Amino acid sequence: MSAGSSFGKNFTVTTFGESHGAALGCVIDGCPAGIELSADDIRPYMDRRRPGQSEFTTKRNETDEVEILSGVFEGKTEGTPIALLIRNKDQHSKDYSEIASYYRPGHADYTFDQKFGFRDYRGGGRSSGRETAARVAAGAVAARLLNGLGIKAEAYTKSIGDIETGAFDPNEKNELYMPDHEAYLKAAEYIRGLSGKGDSAGGVIECVIHGVPAGLGDPVFDKLSARLAYAVMSIGAVKGFEIGDGFASSLATGLGNNDSFRSEAGSISKVSNHAGGILGGISDGSDIIFRCAVKPTASISATQHAVNKDGDNIDINIKGRHDPVIVPRAVVVVEAMASLVMADAILSDGCDRLETLKQIYGRQG
Amino acid sequence: MSAGSSFGKNFTVTTFGESHGAALGCVIDGCPAGIELSADDIRPYMDRRRPGQSEFTTKRNETDEVEILSGVFEGKTEGTPIALLIRNKDQHSKDYSEIASYYRPGHADYTFDQKFGFRDYRGGGRSSGRETAARVAAGAVAARLLNGLGIKAEAYTKSIGDIETGAFDPNEKNELYMPDHEAYLKAAEYIRGLSGKGDSAGGVIECVIHGVPAGLGDPVFDKLSARLAYAVMSIGAVKGFEIGDGFASSLATGLGNNDSFRSEAGSISKVSNHAGGILGGISDGSDIIFRCAVKPTASISATQHAVNKDGDNIDINIKGRHDPVIVPRAVVVVEAMASLVMADAILSDGCDRLETLKQIYGRQG
Amino acid sequence: MSAGSSFGKNFTVTTFGESHGAALGCVIDGCPAGIELSADDIRPYMDRRRPGQSEFTTKRNETDEVEILSGVFEGKTEGTPIALLIRNKDQHSKDYSEIASYYRPGHADYTFDQKFGFRDYRGGGRSSGRETAARVAAGAVAARLLNGLGIKAEAYTKSIGDIETGAFDPNEKNELYMPDHEAYLKAAEYIRGLSGKGDSAGGVIECVIHGVPAGLGDPVFDKLSARLAYAVMSIGAVKGFEIGDGFASSLATGLGNNDSFRSEAGSISKVSNHAGGILGGISDGSDIIFRCAVKPTASISATQHAVNKDGDNIDINIKGRHDPVIVPRAVVVVEAMASLVMADAILSDGCDRLETLKQIYGRQG
Amino acid sequence: MSAGSSFGKNFTVTTFGESHGAALGCVIDGCPAGIELSADDIRPYMDRRRPGQSEFTTKRNETDEVEILSGVFEGKTEGTPIALLIRNKDQHSKDYSEIASYYRPGHADYTFDQKFGFRDYRGGGRSSGRETAARVAAGAVAARLLNGLGIKAEAYTKSIGDIETGAFDPNEKNELYMPDHEAYLKAAEYIRGLSGKGDSAGGVIECVIHGVPAGLGDPVFDKLSARLAYAVMSIGAVKGFEIGDGFASSLATGLGNNDSFRSEAGSISKVSNHAGGILGGISDGSDIIFRCAVKPTASISATQHAVNKDGDNIDINIKGRHDPVIVPRAVVVVEAMASLVMADAILSDGCDRLETLKQIYGRQG
Repeated sequence: MSAGSSFGKNFTVTTFGESHGAALGCVIDGCPAGIELSADDIRPYMDRRRPGQSEFTTKRNETDEVEILSGVFEGKTEGTPIALLIRNKDQHSKDYSEIASYYRPGHADYTFDQKFGFRDYRGGGRSSGRETAARVAAGAVAARLLNGLGIKAEAYTKSIGDIETGAFDPNEKNELYMPDHEAYLKAAEYIRGLSGKGDSAGGVIECVIHGVPAGLGDPVFDKLSARLAYAVMSIGAVKGFEIGDGFASSLATGLGNNDSFRSEAGSISKVSNHAGGILGGISDGSDIIFRCAVKPTASISATQHAVNKDGDNIDINIKGRHDPVIVPRAVVVVEAMASLVMADAILSDGCDRLETLKQIYGRQG
Repeated sequence: MSAGSSFGKNFTVTTFGESHGAALGCVIDGCPAGIELSADDIRPYMDRRRPGQSEFTTKRNETDEVEILSGVFEGKTEGTPIALLIRNKDQHSKDYSEIASYYRPGHADYTFDQKFGFRDYRGGGRSSGRETAARVAAGAVAARLLNGLGIKAEAYTKSIGDIETGAFDPNEKNELYMPDHEAYLKAAEYIRGLSGKGDSAGGVIECVIHGVPAGLGDPVFDKLSARLAYAVMSIGAVKGFEIGDGFASSLATGLGNNDSFRSEAGSISKVSNHAGGILGGISDGSDIIFRCAVKPTASISATQHAVNKDGDNIDINIKGRHDPVIVPRAVVVVEAMASLVMADAILSDGCDRLETLKQIYGRQG
Repeated sequence: MSAGSSFGKNFTVTTFGESHGAALGCVIDGCPAGIELSADDIRPYMDRRRPGQSEFTTKRNETDEVEILSGVFEGKTEGTPIALLIRNKDQHSKDYSEIASYYRPGHADYTFDQKFGFRDYRGGGRSSGRETAARVAAGAVAARLLNGLGIKAEAYTKSIGDIETGAFDPNEKNELYMPDHEAYLKAAEYIRGLSGKGDSAGGVIECVIHGVPAGLGDPVFDKLSARLAYAVMSIGAVKGFEIGDGFASSLATGLGNNDSFRSEAGSISKVSNHAGGILGGISDGSDIIFRCAVKPTASISATQHAVNKDGDNIDINIKGRHDPVIVPRAVVVVEAMASLVMADAILSDGCDRLETLKQIYGRQG
Repeated sequence: MSAGSSFGKNFTVTTFGESHGAALGCVIDGCPAGIELSADDIRPYMDRRRPGQSEFTTKRNETDEVEILSGVFEGKTEGTPIALLIRNKDQHSKDYSEIASYYRPGHADYTFDQKFGFRDYRGGGRSSGRETAARVAAGAVAARLLNGLGIKAEAYTKSIGDIETGAFDPNEKNELYMPDHEAYLKAAEYIRGLSGKGDSAGGVIECVIHGVPAGLGDPVFDKLSARLAYAVMSIGAVKGFEIGDGFASSLATGLGNNDSFRSEAGSISKVSNHAGGILGGISDGSDIIFRCAVKPTASISATQHAVNKDGDNIDINIKGRHDPVIVPRAVVVVEAMASLVMADAILSDGCDRLETLKQIYGRQG
């Protein structure tokens, strides 16, 4: 491994940036030419991830304006690398001497120190959730490509603690991205209760990818499901991933879990979707459905046991405002990672059959 | 993607082979020189995956003898690619005309056809579970490397249906690889009941990786947890992956989920392991613990609805003996994938710091 | 680097095998489905590389029969990995104790020892020219794919020592693969003279790739010319690579070196081809033309100064029959590498434009 | 291929930027932690590439100040991606309507159009030599890593046209980077003569890499020589590459071309260096020596035949000032590419032997 900040083989994203460095950003290499793209297409995605939007997110005010540095000309992608830049604002304003002195539980302070011999203690450096801003920007570009092909990833909050979204209400809009008004109210109450005690909550995000053609994914290792798992589990706070019925399928029997095929008017489909849209690692034409578990925010103000750099056992109280739950802000990050996987898969679709290559090759004549 | 049969960046495994073709096997590229290796080191792993061992596995009798074709000289790895060959026996003996005529529910018949324009219907071709034989052989080589460094992956059956392993009994040996005698007896009964009805069972496998040094894993995308998820989710029947407390962490609060650090006699460790041994994508020196969900065997003899290649809706009964549960045979496959990830991570460990490079470089003088 | 035995991103070849181990071979991953392929398609390429064909090649008699282990079903490629196996015959018959005791000049004995801490002294192990047998087999598969698209790589001997091929005579067939009968006769005499003194000759190979569509190659690093250089320079004895006018272009001026464009009947072409068919790293629709320099065979029987493993300065005479010139046998190896590069480039061609993706995607409906 | 703007496996550089877009730059992923780095370390390299330095380079005044956006903290590399940004100045000041209307001979205008369906005509867009600014910045970082290990790449002008550098004079400094005062004077006269006629010159660059330990390079495809060829041939104007005696070795005989080994005071070395420091693709401890051919500048003001976008055959005169020879400015680019290859090779050096891994692993305890 070693150089671990790139994702994707043909649609390749490389991200950079620390939480409190000069800037974050990414380079997208392999994006096809001819896609209309401007900063306006990226902004709505950034806004969904942005802090300071509600009582449940930190007050840090990042406008996160994205500058397109390259790869776009006359409003269209050129086929060359697309570099996106997000400046960090006010990153020098704080005193980090305390946080630099100890290892926070649930954070990567200790492991970065073990790996690299020293660490960037300013807000977690590279291990900060702020890193996901670059993913969201890249995901917005992938979404532009996918949308041109009728594919769309949509994520939402499935649960906060043990409060689950019931029936999906497409009209329900709230700052927890929970498409069920009753569940939202309960979840908000639950979070407020924890927040008041300096504690935090976790939850589950579900993502549905619509309009996926059958035939995407590359067995045996690059199964579409495996690539999705890889992508989503690379988000800092994610601790679990499941596709279709996931862990529940371990409780089912073959008869109940298999999705029967049905032919109607010359078109083949499945009568159920326990598999979550992928069979043998290849998309089957149904919606792709997956979920991931997000742990409770590690930064809490309640007293915790920790170790400082001198090796003393100490008690700490982490200062500053932190999100009492990061699930709502992670929703768009999950969508972004799903879009990156799908864009990468789409770019190999023409390579599967000789007959398709013959068609492509014909264009050159 | 496209070329999806390789895994790993520096310890790279490429597998090949269809269920009923001439042979399966793999090439391991990047394995360091100087590791003692013979077919005898690989055989025990193959034996654990082999069918025909109990009432719960198919009667297909594959001895699965592995031939080392290259990369080993005078009993040691040479640093050159290690090719391993497993011949398929009796692969021409069966009539596949029926299975070739329809798409089996829960299998990749339909998706391979959609992707490639035709498929290898002999026992599932490349999408068969038989493909994992090559993974197990490769995993055995990775395990040799890891064992030389004190690292060892150990997996076992955590549950079959809703019957869970309780206290781990290291002395308990049974064909379900369930380290709890009571649970084993119940699970066996559960499977027999389903098998009698032509149905099948699923389950959960847990894997613990012992002896992992702190500092392995490459954020932000190649987090060690993400690589493990990718590797394990690429196993055919796996539908979910979680690390540490996994999905349960979504129900916890920050205070309960964070693992406090403690310093004792100059050494830092965590007092709990909700994280599962990885913080911020980098190993923290604790055991790595993960679980995966295995769906019930898709091949069942009970009547199912399917579609044939002419587009007719038909009822099918899949003939032949199949494993009523594949969890026990998948245990060693999960171990193998965990070993491949760890071997790959180990091979980049020297690259993290300039000071380590200076030490390595000193050897050359 | 580390795992260095794979080539290609989307059409990926991984080779394995030592000169005197059990077998050599390769795995081709990413080859599209639907290409007719059998061992008969590969044999003619292997025969061109085979020793024992003339007075200028070693008498070692390798029939080099290739077995297709996987990836082909009902006479066609399946889209799954194609594994090719070449057994080594009589590899245990020789005494290697002398060769094991010293480092041969011009060979990799010393460097393998320095890299890996020990080496496979049997006929050079992995560093033997025998390794190229696997490349030729893989190249034959790539050629099948390319031929289906009207693309063909053709190489021949441009020079032996300072004897150059003059006018290309397509009807001239000789064992030096030199398409000029006069030059062939002179070169044969030159080689015989050196061979009689226990010495050896080098030469230059030229390769022309016909039928290449414009638009292949991926700037800025994966320029088609750079990939060809990489591929060809990876052949053991190759010491130089040039495309189009190559080194001679350093002597030209801009006016003489630039190829003017000309439009005729709606079609644009170049009036000359100093560039060798590639502009800015992308194919321009002309023939691609490149050359490579092959050093004289390192294994010679004349007396040489060497060092043994005890560190003594000794004089050696390498025993056994070796090719007094390897250029003729390398011709098909160069062709093979050119085919691998082109197959890899072709597989990304559909990814360059959104409009092409829309066409491919339409097939799924 | 497709995503072709990244180079290196473990020390990975991704570049971005068009000649007249907002900015150029790169992301370096996999650089070890602990290397002292500031913009001051990069500036001297940028200055050597900068135009406007002499009568032989364009008057375009780019100061090319590099901003380090990430990956450096408290003056040292963090082990995280290092993003470098170079703003383009005054990029909107020109009228490109004429250049947009036709395909320039010797340029990539036509091929980009064929590949992507449209092109960035502003100064050549991505295919401009300006792209190499990002390579030089990345190479400066690689050089910092290498220098810490005693490795250094040094390039200079070997020839301009047929005027060759004779004896290497380390004290000779001139704007052609030709270390021989007599040759410099002749070459300057030669260039002036061509420039006066609106024509241009080419040349050859030689690079020596000092201090390379034996054992670097990964056969069979990732031979160190093959990686160097790949890297150097990816520079826009380079048409040929050779290592050691290169093409001249095709004229030599085995006896003359083989480098004898000699043992002295317990240390083994070669008595000559025809091989150029690499045997069998692995460094042998000698200096690595290679050369590359640079074609004459394609942009010339003399009248040329071209085709416009309407398909008319026209005569053109390219306006503006262009370098009458790009060899001197390419010297530092060649050095940069050599440094990138070596840094990448160094990062896998610890992976070759089990014994080295055991040493590294010991650090963790």
